[in-house]
Amino acid sequence: MPEKRLSELCKICSDHGFETQLKGQDKTVHAVNTLEDACEGEVSFLSNPKYIASLAATKASAVVLKDGVEVPNGVSALRCKDPYAAITVAIIALHGYRRHPQWGVSERANIEASAKIGRDTHIAPGATIAADVEIGDGCTIYSGCYIADRVRIGHECVLYPNVVVYDDCVLGHRVTIHSGTVIGEDGLGYAPHDGRWIKIPQAGYAVIGDDVEIGANCSIDRATLGKTEIGSGTKFGNVVVIGHGTKVGPDCMFVGLVGVAGSAKIGKHVTIAGQTGVAGHITIGDNVSVAGQSAVHSDVEAGMKILGSPAGEIGPARRSLIAMHKLPDWIKRVKQLEKELAQLRELVKETDA
Amino acid sequence: MPEKRLSELCKICSDHGFETQLKGQDKTVHAVNTLEDACEGEVSFLSNPKYIASLAATKASAVVLKDGVEVPNGVSALRCKDPYAAITVAIIALHGYRRHPQWGVSERANIEASAKIGRDTHIAPGATIAADVEIGDGCTIYSGCYIADRVRIGHECVLYPNVVVYDDCVLGHRVTIHSGTVIGEDGLGYAPHDGRWIKIPQAGYAVIGDDVEIGANCSIDRATLGKTEIGSGTKFGNVVVIGHGTKVGPDCMFVGLVGVAGSAKIGKHVTIAGQTGVAGHITIGDNVSVAGQSAVHSDVEAGMKILGSPAGEIGPARRSLIAMHKLPDWIKRVKQLEKELAQLRELVKETDA
Amino acid sequence: MPEKRLSELCKICSDHGFETQLKGQDKTVHAVNTLEDACEGEVSFLSNPKYIASLAATKASAVVLKDGVEVPNGVSALRCKDPYAAITVAIIALHGYRRHPQWGVSERANIEASAKIGRDTHIAPGATIAADVEIGDGCTIYSGCYIADRVRIGHECVLYPNVVVYDDCVLGHRVTIHSGTVIGEDGLGYAPHDGRWIKIPQAGYAVIGDDVEIGANCSIDRATLGKTEIGSGTKFGNVVVIGHGTKVGPDCMFVGLVGVAGSAKIGKHVTIAGQTGVAGHITIGDNVSVAGQSAVHSDVEAGMKILGSPAGEIGPARRSLIAMHKLPDWIKRVKQLEKELAQLRELVKETDA
Repeated sequence: MPEKRLSELCKICSDHGFETQLKGQDKTVHAVNTLEDACEGEVSFLSNPKYIASLAATKASAVVLKDGVEVPNGVSALRCKDPYAAITVAIIALHGYRRHPQWGVSERANIEASAKIGRDTHIAPGATIAADVEIGDGCTIYSGCYIADRVRIGHECVLYPNVVVYDDCVLGHRVTIHSGTVIGEDGLGYAPHDGRWIKIPQAGYAVIGDDVEIGANCSIDRATLGKTEIGSGTKFGNVVVIGHGTKVGPDCMFVGLVGVAGSAKIGKHVTIAGQTGVAGHITIGDNVSVAGQSAVHSDVEAGMKILGSPAGEIGPARRSLIAMHKLPDWIKRVKQLEKELAQLRELVKETDA
Repeated sequence: MPEKRLSELCKICSDHGFETQLKGQDKTVHAVNTLEDACEGEVSFLSNPKYIASLAATKASAVVLKDGVEVPNGVSALRCKDPYAAITVAIIALHGYRRHPQWGVSERANIEASAKIGRDTHIAPGATIAADVEIGDGCTIYSGCYIADRVRIGHECVLYPNVVVYDDCVLGHRVTIHSGTVIGEDGLGYAPHDGRWIKIPQAGYAVIGDDVEIGANCSIDRATLGKTEIGSGTKFGNVVVIGHGTKVGPDCMFVGLVGVAGSAKIGKHVTIAGQTGVAGHITIGDNVSVAGQSAVHSDVEAGMKILGSPAGEIGPARRSLIAMHKLPDWIKRVKQLEKELAQLRELVKETDA
Repeated sequence: MPEKRLSELCKICSDHGFETQLKGQDKTVHAVNTLEDACEGEVSFLSNPKYIASLAATKASAVVLKDGVEVPNGVSALRCKDPYAAITVAIIALHGYRRHPQWGVSERANIEASAKIGRDTHIAPGATIAADVEIGDGCTIYSGCYIADRVRIGHECVLYPNVVVYDDCVLGHRVTIHSGTVIGEDGLGYAPHDGRWIKIPQAGYAVIGDDVEIGANCSIDRATLGKTEIGSGTKFGNVVVIGHGTKVGPDCMFVGLVGVAGSAKIGKHVTIAGQTGVAGHITIGDNVSVAGQSAVHSDVEAGMKILGSPAGEIGPARRSLIAMHKLPDWIKRVKQLEKELAQLRELVKETDA
């Protein structure tokens, strides 16, 4: 791991557009760590104010943080308006990205003669490249991956162990797929007939755009006809499930355990938090943000923030949830009103009489 | 892919019991596609009226649809009462089902000498068939599958890459299991003791009935004692999780991310939509339909349609949800009532006095 | 499978601290089974009173149950205060735990020369042990497992087929991981920049404590910096998803489809029921119990039982849910109140006039 002087780190951050200034001693650091776990020779950061208590006790040699927050004695400060961006630059500078094993094309991989494999692409022992597959340059295919017939994969993709890509699917360039994820399996395509389910051949495929990263144990159905699409630059967490024929736009982020049913259309830069479900055949506009555990049952206009099951605009939905938690109190008040009204009615009658 | 004349397709659909008539020119088509993606030489369909706008712009050579919906100039119409059924027949006729690689029994598969493998069964490189396993005729076992000791598998089953079947489990005939699914892992069987968890040996197994199809990345626990059962003809989407000892009846359909806890009994032809949870030890009757993101906590009578967390009959449950969304308004009305009642009481008192 | 006399079983249970007495004939049994599925030569049990109806019809030779519940003629009774604990002892005595295949270190496994493997550790065909890995004694690594660079694994661990452990992660002793589970994949670590997502190198790792058992198809993110931790003795069901940097305490139990976001801190002996979500950066105290399908959005004090989305104390939360189901009735009562108040006001005015 490369060491860096704090002054060097400041320069690298500033060069990336995140102006950073060193206050205190110029030291050598070799790693980034959390305030809690850091030790000497490591640089840490304070971005979320929730963790300010950890600052006093940190053993880090230096901390990236905003102006106005004091650092303990002996800890150098790297002052920056956006500590999260600056620490990202520092992590890249000090740690870099994962280096993959260099198997070449392993003799223990199972590769069909008709497959075409690019330059500098590594295929691990126990990976399978089936008939008529095309893989670009600079890819890494780990063990236990199964790349089925006629799949096309671009340049510089990484498929971690045990990824499966079904026949005819297409991956763009710089796609990263984590372990256990399946691309292009058959979706729930059945025609009901006499109380039974007749399987409809799933004749479509799935297309994953450039620069997509997909977490572990996700499942992206192929389309029944045509294609399921995941737009370029989109990122998925773990166990995201996408139904057949759904189109997800570019630069989206879906968190863990999100499920989207079939034939949905989701715009660009949509964020969907954990355990949310999206119904089939609906349209979600650009830049929509959906809170966790929501259920989206109908079309959503661009730019909306929504919440709830069924999901509605976040402000009113939140007020409804808060109101719901006080429901037993409101019920008491309604009962009380009924009682008082009855009493008053009696009083009025007596007066009347 | 086989080409067909539209007149031939009409005949095939009609022969299957879905009377279909050609209106317009008899053309040759080679594929089925969506209205949006279809091009010349392809046949499309209109089943969901939501997509009627796509009809005007389609480039398909022909469209399967009901009477009364006009087609654009130059597009042939295949008129049918049930376009979804007819297009299913057309997809089967034009595309057919997936053709699997023909590895024979690969020398790169790991097969115990005591395993028995039927005729015309293909075992891929990197698949494992453990001791005393029995596999029937005409099966396809892809790479990375692990079939553990004493498992029995019927005829014409397909196990896609990286499926795991734990020891002693039983699969019927024509079972299809998609990638990453695990059958028969140990469930959460622990006895609490002194704040710790003592593992109970999971001595049972799991049985998957004939004609079952299971999606990707599902997990079906073995029973602690006796068996977990998935009834014949039942279909699961992706990431369905079934607890130990649960019995699912025949011809059910469970959508993605459904979880059923242990020792539940679910009848025949039950449909459970996405992200729904079913508690342990409860009974769900035949033909029940559960909406998405529901939580089923107690027994459900046959034929019911339910919704919600906890789930109740769909009509009242929906009314409660709608009411909840207007809760802040109702609270205002209660406050207003309190105010008006107080004013009226004052008025009555004054009058009284 | 070893046979046992009922008198022997009683002695074994009593020796384990669960005093058990034989009433009726001393017979030989060879297996434990459910009341419903048991046949002659098998012992069953009644713990959950829900199953008392199955007792009359059981074909078991003997039943473990409490005093005061009668057994059918010819069935021997093993009387015990805690039938669940006693039957656990009986299952261990009669069935024992799974016996794994004995591959030794298979020549068909892919093992880097720099890896260190302990005594009596079995590595299956098709397993991969990458560079600088250290594995202790008495472990079982099934086919399709991928143990990445520099991973350390303790003694007596079992990794079922197709488990993936990413680089630098650490497993303690007696850890059991079921098929399809992934440990240490990159989490959703991106810095937003100009509407795109810049990947932050995930420089941390994940640590799994001693005696942890993890179900099938789970995903445990590595930390961005420092470590994700799963405490010793903790048990997970299937498809549990843990975010980067989260710390789970010892002796917890998380049921299927639970998702915990990143940087959460969860105490010891916390139980989380199925499909519940926990937000990032929050703290849950010791011995907390969370009901199914809940959403935990804020810190939870030790010992609390919570429910709901968002989750609150179980008593009031349950009352709110019950109230919600009657909401349409309450709305009717509010409308009725408004009407009656208006009538009374009219009456008062008339009287007044």
